[in-house]
Amino acid sequence: MCIVGLGLIGGSLMRDLHARGERVYGCTLHGARAARRDGFDVCDSVEEVLRRAEADRALVVVAVPMRAAASVLDQVAELAPSCWVTDVVSVKQPVYDLVVERGLAARYVGGHPMAGTEFSGWTASQEGLFAGAAWAVTFDYAREAPTDRDWAALFTTVCTLARVVGAEAVPVSVARHDEAVARVSHLPHVIAEALALVGDRGGTLAQSLSAGSFRGATRVASTEPELVRNMCETNAASLVPVLDEFIALLTDARASLDSTPPSMQALAESGHRAHLRMAARHGARRESVSPVKISSRPVMRVHPGAPGWVHQLEQIESLGGRVEVF
Amino acid sequence: MCIVGLGLIGGSLMRDLHARGERVYGCTLHGARAARRDGFDVCDSVEEVLRRAEADRALVVVAVPMRAAASVLDQVAELAPSCWVTDVVSVKQPVYDLVVERGLAARYVGGHPMAGTEFSGWTASQEGLFAGAAWAVTFDYAREAPTDRDWAALFTTVCTLARVVGAEAVPVSVARHDEAVARVSHLPHVIAEALALVGDRGGTLAQSLSAGSFRGATRVASTEPELVRNMCETNAASLVPVLDEFIALLTDARASLDSTPPSMQALAESGHRAHLRMAARHGARRESVSPVKISSRPVMRVHPGAPGWVHQLEQIESLGGRVEVF
Repeated sequence: MCIVGLGLIGGSLMRDLHARGERVYGCTLHGARAARRDGFDVCDSVEEVLRRAEADRALVVVAVPMRAAASVLDQVAELAPSCWVTDVVSVKQPVYDLVVERGLAARYVGGHPMAGTEFSGWTASQEGLFAGAAWAVTFDYAREAPTDRDWAALFTTVCTLARVVGAEAVPVSVARHDEAVARVSHLPHVIAEALALVGDRGGTLAQSLSAGSFRGATRVASTEPELVRNMCETNAASLVPVLDEFIALLTDARASLDSTPPSMQALAESGHRAHLRMAARHGARRESVSPVKISSRPVMRVHPGAPGWVHQLEQIESLGGRVEVF
Repeated sequence: MCIVGLGLIGGSLMRDLHARGERVYGCTLHGARAARRDGFDVCDSVEEVLRRAEADRALVVVAVPMRAAASVLDQVAELAPSCWVTDVVSVKQPVYDLVVERGLAARYVGGHPMAGTEFSGWTASQEGLFAGAAWAVTFDYAREAPTDRDWAALFTTVCTLARVVGAEAVPVSVARHDEAVARVSHLPHVIAEALALVGDRGGTLAQSLSAGSFRGATRVASTEPELVRNMCETNAASLVPVLDEFIALLTDARASLDSTPPSMQALAESGHRAHLRMAARHGARRESVSPVKISSRPVMRVHPGAPGWVHQLEQIESLGGRVEVF
C-alpha cells in the first residue's frame, strides 16, 4: 500500500495499517522526518514513491488536499500506470472529474473516511481514528461498466481497506456524497467559523460565559483555514444550496422571534424532532454496552461484479447502509 | 437553603450542596418522589416549602423555567417576605423586571450558572455539574444603592454559593448578561435546531455520513423544545440582533462561495482567528495538567459594600473576570 500525503487522514491510515501488520509506505512534503523517527517507511518525494508503487503494483492512496490532487493524479498517470488508485479527499465530484480527464476511471475507486479531528498534519495522526466511522466508497464507474472484473476487484480492495482500519464501507455515488457531506460536514464548518466570530465580538465577557453549546459548535473552527477553504470551495456547488436552506430557516426563526409575542415554536419543535430521528438511527451503535460494537447502519452483503450488484449498491446508498463484500 | 424547582440545574445544585454538608431542601412539581428516594428533603408544594423557608430565613433559589418565574416570585413576595432571593434562570432582564414589579429588588441578586447538559429534569441532575463553570451574578441594584449593607451581604452569599459548588462568580449587569448569552448560548441553540433539520433532510445517507462536526453542533438540539423556546423567546430582544449578525456573515459567505472561483477565504480566516483568540483566553484552565485547576478568568478581590465596590464590579464585568468576596 502506498499513501501519498501523510497528514491527519493519510498519517492515521498509515499508523492503522502498520499496526495491523500491513506493508505500507508513503511520502509527504511536511513531516517525513517525524514519520521516519516514528518508525515508518516514508520519503518526501512523490515521484520516488510512485515509481516504487509501480514496481510493487501497490494500491495508491491519494491523501493530499484537493488543491494538490490534480498534480498528484498527473504523476500517478505517468509514473504508476499499472497501479490501482483510491483517495481520501473530502469532496468526490471534483476528484472524479480529474480522474476521468486523465483516463484513470477504470482503475479508480473514490473513498472518504468520515473521521477527523480539528488538528492536522502528521503530528496529529493517530491510531484508531477510523473505528466505527463511515468510509464512503464511490461506485459511479460500475454503472457504466458493471461487468468490469478488475474494477470490481478494486472495489473489493477499497472496502476491505476500510474494514481493516475498523471503518464501515458506505457505497455512494459522487454526486450524492457531495450533497450529503455539504449538509453534515461542510455546513457545520461554515457555522463554526461564523459563530466563533459572533462570540468573539461579545468580548471577554461573552467568552467567559461561554459553555458547552458554544464549544461544541465552534470546535472545528480550529481546523486550519486552508483545509476548511479547500473543502468548502471545492464543494461550493453542493454547499451553496444547503447554505440557502439553512439561512432560510434562520431567517424564518428571526422573523418569528421578532414578532409579538416572540416565538421559536416552529424551529424548536421541528429541529428537536429532526434531531430525535437522526439520534434514533444512530442509537444502537452509540448506546451499546457490549464490548462488541454493533453498527446501527443496515448491512448488505454484496459480491462485486455479480449480476445486479450495482443495483444492490444503489439500494444500500439510499439507506446510508454499509456493504460487506465477499 | 431552599430551592424551588429541581430540574437539571436546581437538582444538581441540591446534590452539590447536600454533598458539601449544607442544609438544603426544596420542592419540585415533577420528580419529587424520585428526589426523596435519592435521600433528599423534597416536597411538591411551592407554598409549603416557602412557608418553611420563611420560618428558617432561608436563601430562596428560584430554579424554575422562565415561564413559571412570575408565579413563583408572587408566592415568594407573599409567603417568604423575609427571605433573600436568587435564581438560576438563563435570562436576567425579564426576571429582574418581575423582581422590580414585585418590590423585591432590595433582596434579590440574580444568578445564572453557565453549565448544563442536553438533558433535563431531576433524573438528569448530577453532582459536580458546576465545577469550573462561570456563575453570572447580577449587580444592577448596587448601582442604585451602593451602600445598602443588606444587599451587599446577599451579594456575598450568592458569590459564596457559586464558590461552594466549584463555580466562579462572574459579576455582570442584567443587560450585558443577556446580550452575551444571546451570542454564546442562545444562538448555538438556534443553530443546533436548524442544522438538525438540514441534516435530517439529507436522509439516512447524510445521517450515516455525519461525524464529529455535526454531532458537536447539534448536540443541544436534544434539549426539550420547551426549554429552548423559553430561553430564546424571553431573550428575543438580545437574540434577534445577534441572529442578524450571524445571518449577515453566512449571507456574505454564501455570495462569495457562489462566485467564480468560489471563495471562503474571508470567513475561514477571520473565523479561525476569532476562535484562536477565544481559545487563548481559555488556555490555562483547559490545558493545565496540575490537579489544582487554574482558572483563566482574571480575578479581583472585592469587599461588598466597601467604597468603590460597584466600580470594581464594572471593571471585572468588562473583563469577564471572576470576583472573590471577602
